[in-house]
Amino acid sequence: MTETEKKEGIKSTSTQSVEQQTRKASINFIVKDKSFEKFAMMMILGTTGDAMDTKMNFFFTFWGLNLLKKNFKPKVAGMPAPMKGMAANMFKKRMKKFGIEDPWAMIKDAVDSGNMKLYPCQMTMDLMGIKREDLLDWVEDPVGAASFLEMSNGGQIVSL
Amino acid sequence: MTETEKKEGIKSTSTQSVEQQTRKASINFIVKDKSFEKFAMMMILGTTGDAMDTKMNFFFTFWGLNLLKKNFKPKVAGMPAPMKGMAANMFKKRMKKFGIEDPWAMIKDAVDSGNMKLYPCQMTMDLMGIKREDLLDWVEDPVGAASFLEMSNGGQIVSL
Amino acid sequence: MTETEKKEGIKSTSTQSVEQQTRKASINFIVKDKSFEKFAMMMILGTTGDAMDTKMNFFFTFWGLNLLKKNFKPKVAGMPAPMKGMAANMFKKRMKKFGIEDPWAMIKDAVDSGNMKLYPCQMTMDLMGIKREDLLDWVEDPVGAASFLEMSNGGQIVSL
Repeated sequence: MTETEKKEGIKSTSTQSVEQQTRKASINFIVKDKSFEKFAMMMILGTTGDAMDTKMNFFFTFWGLNLLKKNFKPKVAGMPAPMKGMAANMFKKRMKKFGIEDPWAMIKDAVDSGNMKLYPCQMTMDLMGIKREDLLDWVEDPVGAASFLEMSNGGQIVSL
Repeated sequence: MTETEKKEGIKSTSTQSVEQQTRKASINFIVKDKSFEKFAMMMILGTTGDAMDTKMNFFFTFWGLNLLKKNFKPKVAGMPAPMKGMAANMFKKRMKKFGIEDPWAMIKDAVDSGNMKLYPCQMTMDLMGIKREDLLDWVEDPVGAASFLEMSNGGQIVSL
Repeated sequence: MTETEKKEGIKSTSTQSVEQQTRKASINFIVKDKSFEKFAMMMILGTTGDAMDTKMNFFFTFWGLNLLKKNFKPKVAGMPAPMKGMAANMFKKRMKKFGIEDPWAMIKDAVDSGNMKLYPCQMTMDLMGIKREDLLDWVEDPVGAASFLEMSNGGQIVSL
């Protein structure tokens, strides 16, 4: 990269209008796994984003959609099979020590404040035969990939 | 990357007119796994992006490069080992019901329209001894990490 | 987060001085796995970014934090269990042929030049009982998710 290119790169970002900047603020996550790790990342990022007043949309696709099912218990992926469930409980206990008493209640707070939104993937629901009533009542209505890309327009996309 | 493409790439990032902004920046995906799930995400995002006239570059690295091999059959990662292959076929059958008859043909359409580009990672080819003729004829020429970062400049990077 | 911090966070996104814009160029990676693949991606992206004079921050969370432990040897995730360790050594040998003699020395060079920064996740250290002295001496001090999101503000977030 030459010096000129670098300077121009900086210029290009500096001309963006205030409107552009506002739309930039959203962070849009793809959640594709059902592991406890992904659940915890979603919870920590979403609630931290809420505290920072940053809009965060989470799009749950493939196995990730399981995380929005009523009473679903995520297991720790990075553990040998027999310990996956136990490890999740262990993490939950340790999290309590750090003030995370009820992760879902914290997520719901962030959702209620309007900063965090949880979107089920419509195609995943169709492919896996999952019905709206299988999912938590307070998540958004299902959307497709096109809607996700549209809402992400101008913001960030992060595939967790 | 041809000289013309390089110049256009530089121009597009350096001028960044309002028109540019509206035209939406490119989305640049890193595909690092060879699973059916990642294949499906690539297909759905790339063809949806094409329908929305959004430029999407996919950079296939590590095991992800396998997806560009001729006759490679991705298996479902999020399933117990004996069901991985079967599950991929099951998903493909269900996808047909939703109008996805031939995923590769849909990808090739998006590639032909110029919005979707599939880049093999040069270093992965070197490290794994994969030759150009092992890959689908119509994917782009291999590029390195630096070229990928350059083409992503001003756009988004998403690691699937 | 205090009210003052929140306001400053909002101010920083709304005013967007040229100085801010320079920080915009940063690419901010979340490293959540301890695999050799993720280690290699971190190394290649970070050192390539340094060569292109792009600021890259890496935030090591969950199992990814292991990569910053002294003498930790990452294993290849995309291989059957008995070959995971062997495969890492095989890749390292092949990388030598392509000029990657000592990956950690290359990473340290990029860190010393000021372009690449490695951040341990504070919550992961707390949850897993990992101490600062367990980690490489020359990585940054641990930070939380809020600090990571703040340093990523205006730049890119990529979850590897």
